[in-house]
Amino acid sequence: MTYCLGITTKDGFVVASDSRSNAGYDQVNVCRKMHLFEQPGERVFVAMTSGSLSCSQSIVTLLRKDFGIGAGLAAAESMYDAARAVGEQVRRVSDLDRRSLEQDGLKVNVHVILAGQIRGQPHDLYMIYPQGNPLRSTEESPFLQIGECKYGRPILDRGVRFEHTSLEDAARYALISIDSTLRSNVTVGPPIDLLVYGRDELHLDRRRRFLDRDPDLIAIHTQWEQALRLAVQAIPRVNFEPETSM
Amino acid sequence: MTYCLGITTKDGFVVASDSRSNAGYDQVNVCRKMHLFEQPGERVFVAMTSGSLSCSQSIVTLLRKDFGIGAGLAAAESMYDAARAVGEQVRRVSDLDRRSLEQDGLKVNVHVILAGQIRGQPHDLYMIYPQGNPLRSTEESPFLQIGECKYGRPILDRGVRFEHTSLEDAARYALISIDSTLRSNVTVGPPIDLLVYGRDELHLDRRRRFLDRDPDLIAIHTQWEQALRLAVQAIPRVNFEPETSM
Repeated sequence: MTYCLGITTKDGFVVASDSRSNAGYDQVNVCRKMHLFEQPGERVFVAMTSGSLSCSQSIVTLLRKDFGIGAGLAAAESMYDAARAVGEQVRRVSDLDRRSLEQDGLKVNVHVILAGQIRGQPHDLYMIYPQGNPLRSTEESPFLQIGECKYGRPILDRGVRFEHTSLEDAARYALISIDSTLRSNVTVGPPIDLLVYGRDELHLDRRRRFLDRDPDLIAIHTQWEQALRLAVQAIPRVNFEPETSM
Repeated sequence: MTYCLGITTKDGFVVASDSRSNAGYDQVNVCRKMHLFEQPGERVFVAMTSGSLSCSQSIVTLLRKDFGIGAGLAAAESMYDAARAVGEQVRRVSDLDRRSLEQDGLKVNVHVILAGQIRGQPHDLYMIYPQGNPLRSTEESPFLQIGECKYGRPILDRGVRFEHTSLEDAARYALISIDSTLRSNVTVGPPIDLLVYGRDELHLDRRRRFLDRDPDLIAIHTQWEQALRLAVQAIPRVNFEPETSM
């Protein structure tokens, strides 16, 4: 399984991903799911993938090949076009592999999150479905998730706001969301990749890889659990009223 | 959808359930999913169900009928036997309805949580699968969930401990877990039923139904969101190191 998320705010975006790949319980590997495409000062993109590692790799390989020759993401005129460029490669790999996979009961199921900015235009955050069609994040729904989404969602629902959440806080929310998912699902695992991008920076240098047992990540995890326990205990005692209808 | 959970600790148990029943988005109803079986001073049981409302109702009706004539839950010699008595009715309804449901592509999918105590024996918490087999909670896994489990799980994983969590705190965890699920999934909804049972009480009178817009529940929700935001902001700032391998 996989868990990747992107948060967009008025100040920029934060993306984070786990690194566990597994085909069944006995074939567990580490692989990076965050892929950077950068022309410093001109355009930057981060793509994260969930689903079949083989299909995901193919999509990234094709995107990388296009980018190297000034096509695809390198030529997109807008973030919408960039999301469409990713969708094209999703569809291409689907065309290449779907028939063979389906005859063995396997599915083409790659989701992609694409965050980025092209000079002179606003930064933006998209998800691309396995069918290749893009979905844009909005001010009302300022985060997108792929893979094992549910464990890490409540904390984002509670706290992330496009207008009011600082990038620093968004990075904290992203780490807590991933940490919650790690805690509840063994098929999501470290290292954790985190990248913070401030609007109009047009380079991708604020990034960090948290290895297993990273002391900073352990500190966040421990402090968070302690804070939650205290917050629970601070909640008013539940009053019970006589009730006869039950 | 449904969300029900049970938490067991050395001091007793807490159970909570939502009340939304929906068959598709346009047929949303309120129904109680928490069912009490009580012989005060002798034995007490709480059963909660997820899955097809029709099958769940049948199971509860059959359990109720047996209980009224001193059979089933009324005759079980242990909590294990009680869980088996529930499993028998789950299997009976499966036998009655499976063929007709499956010919229209529907599944027999009722899960039951059973909490209770028989005089002179420890209190206990079980889940009964749609196939009728029981699963017991343990000191290492002191909570069980049915229905839409994932949103409400991280807070339980973080905080609930069999030895150390007080019943009052367990009630708070249960409400927060349900509130998190309500927040993230519209198919789980109020009223919320909550019941707290202290070891050896042998009656079920600490219970509460929170209606939609219940002021206490709103206070908990608001205080919790504020506490989470402050806890996030208290987490150390993430340091970024130069990284070149990406």
